[in-house]
Amino acid sequence: MRIDGRDYRTIWPAPGGASVQVIDQTVLPHELRLAALETAEAAAAAISDMIVRGAPLIGATAAYGMALAMRADPSDAKLAAAGELLTASRPTAVNLRWAVERMQAHLSPLAPAARAAAAWAEAAAIADEDVAACEAIGEHGAALIAKAKKPGKDRVDVLTHCNAGWLATVDWGTALAPIYKAHRAGLPVHVWVDETRPRNQGASLTAWELSKEGVPHTVIADNAGGHLMQHGRVDLCIVGADRVTRAGDVCNKIGTYLKALAAHDNGVPFYAALPSSTVDWRIADGVKEIPIEERSAREVTHISGLGKGGRIETVRLTPEGSAAANPAFDVTPARLVTGLITEAGVCPASEAGLRSLLAGENKAASA
Amino acid sequence: MRIDGRDYRTIWPAPGGASVQVIDQTVLPHELRLAALETAEAAAAAISDMIVRGAPLIGATAAYGMALAMRADPSDAKLAAAGELLTASRPTAVNLRWAVERMQAHLSPLAPAARAAAAWAEAAAIADEDVAACEAIGEHGAALIAKAKKPGKDRVDVLTHCNAGWLATVDWGTALAPIYKAHRAGLPVHVWVDETRPRNQGASLTAWELSKEGVPHTVIADNAGGHLMQHGRVDLCIVGADRVTRAGDVCNKIGTYLKALAAHDNGVPFYAALPSSTVDWRIADGVKEIPIEERSAREVTHISGLGKGGRIETVRLTPEGSAAANPAFDVTPARLVTGLITEAGVCPASEAGLRSLLAGENKAASA
Repeated sequence: MRIDGRDYRTIWPAPGGASVQVIDQTVLPHELRLAALETAEAAAAAISDMIVRGAPLIGATAAYGMALAMRADPSDAKLAAAGELLTASRPTAVNLRWAVERMQAHLSPLAPAARAAAAWAEAAAIADEDVAACEAIGEHGAALIAKAKKPGKDRVDVLTHCNAGWLATVDWGTALAPIYKAHRAGLPVHVWVDETRPRNQGASLTAWELSKEGVPHTVIADNAGGHLMQHGRVDLCIVGADRVTRAGDVCNKIGTYLKALAAHDNGVPFYAALPSSTVDWRIADGVKEIPIEERSAREVTHISGLGKGGRIETVRLTPEGSAAANPAFDVTPARLVTGLITEAGVCPASEAGLRSLLAGENKAASA
Repeated sequence: MRIDGRDYRTIWPAPGGASVQVIDQTVLPHELRLAALETAEAAAAAISDMIVRGAPLIGATAAYGMALAMRADPSDAKLAAAGELLTASRPTAVNLRWAVERMQAHLSPLAPAARAAAAWAEAAAIADEDVAACEAIGEHGAALIAKAKKPGKDRVDVLTHCNAGWLATVDWGTALAPIYKAHRAGLPVHVWVDETRPRNQGASLTAWELSKEGVPHTVIADNAGGHLMQHGRVDLCIVGADRVTRAGDVCNKIGTYLKALAAHDNGVPFYAALPSSTVDWRIADGVKEIPIEERSAREVTHISGLGKGGRIETVRLTPEGSAAANPAFDVTPARLVTGLITEAGVCPASEAGLRSLLAGENKAASA
């Protein structure tokens, strides 16, 4: 997507293969800073320090991390060690392990001398496949946005939660891909951006993405969406997903469930956008079966932003004696979800719906 | 209520009548600072600068402001001018106008020489009546908390939104009064405190009140309540109200509606606590008929807290190019409200319910 008129991805090999470039997401939206990763160790650190975040982007970074390792030392020992290092850089990131294992399976049969070139090509393939999947999600979702435009209104108002944008992937994003596609096709899209406390990925990352791409948008407190829906000011909700059960329950950033309730109460269509790899065929009941990560209380008690001196500062919001709790995700039951937008098309949030769209490619996963 | 073991109200006359003392709420929760108001002008400034806030406390401050005016100059001209000044200190605060008019009606028939003493007594009466109403709300609501305690659980979990505590009134509060009464009666109450973006009155004021009174509590992002309810971790919700229609629709701080939806979806009782003066008998449909104040976008784009140097600092959260919207209240339809807790008792959120409890005292208002 565009930053100040120039096209970017979130990760790309530097010319000549000296390093891999990424956008440092820890200083957004206040500064655009690029980071050059020159070793597998640097790639692992970029993942663990959240310089890059978002499951698809983490996977691509790990793949390029393997390529950097092979450039330095294409031995079997390095192939194993780099894989171990990168896999350990973030807990529970499915794409991370998947990307490392794909790289290892591809490289280990090759002679060491052939590994570096093959690794760069395979990492590029992983990145390109992610871009293609997100772009397909965008095309399918853009059709829904076009359909949601009310005849009497001069714009379509889409509400989104958290950041499921191109910064979380290699390009396009998941929930934001339909918005970018619709905007580029000339649809008058306006986005309500939930700030998404406590980590504020909406106010920082989604708002930044949209402003750089030139998509009209308005940041709101997470509390405001219900009121806007009551007054007909939201035509469609599109969120991302961290995990979707085979029954269509959507696990996503904390607060998604509240917006889905409000959408349901006001007849506003509510969609989740996700690559099919996000579907967990092993489980059905998301509320009962998905364990929810409890993150640091400090994300609730403290917040960072741009201070007066132009530096990023952290301030405390709560009294010293008060505890805080920080569940990071919640589960929206399928009954509140109008549909799921995947790279293969749009389907109802149900086992039948998912199987109608994805049956072929996920047989292995469901075994 | 208690601060570090000592009993406080939010407003009280200094011994000897030299001034009126208030707690400066602009520096909470990070500092306990008292402010002495020595003139009607100072009282008006305390209201407009939000050193005091909350409709009942604003009313009491205006009443004491009138007493300060009468001490300086008990003339008819001053009685009118002070009334005008204080009434203009905050827009749309019903209690403010009500308190000023009550003071003027009480004082204007008196000889100027008798006005100062009568004004102090009347202001004290207004404050005491507010305390009595809040304490009655507390008694009625505490019974509901006792009832909500589940046999197998060792505590009752109450969720509240924003600050409807003693800081918003003269003492006890509205939504928090039942919690204080239950806690003092030995019930094992624990409170989930919504931080309440964008102004964060939950994280700052409610958390501070509860910690000073020793009530166990946990601050959460506004996004978290639905997830907690899905997992049986909330037994009861109690919120305040800025306005309640005769049909029982509850206008309260933005985000209240989302919590009511989640409570309804999970079978959690949802109550609003309010003095009967909050009922607006002229309107029925809150979503259609209550205009919602749109506050400054800066409350969304910036936030203040305690910086590293121990000073209160403001940081920006959003990118420079992003707009923000800030609707300050929303309306929870009566169908989502289990009941209303008033000083006269608890009733269903309906016209029949309200009339059964309050018919006598509100005939004038409904005319």
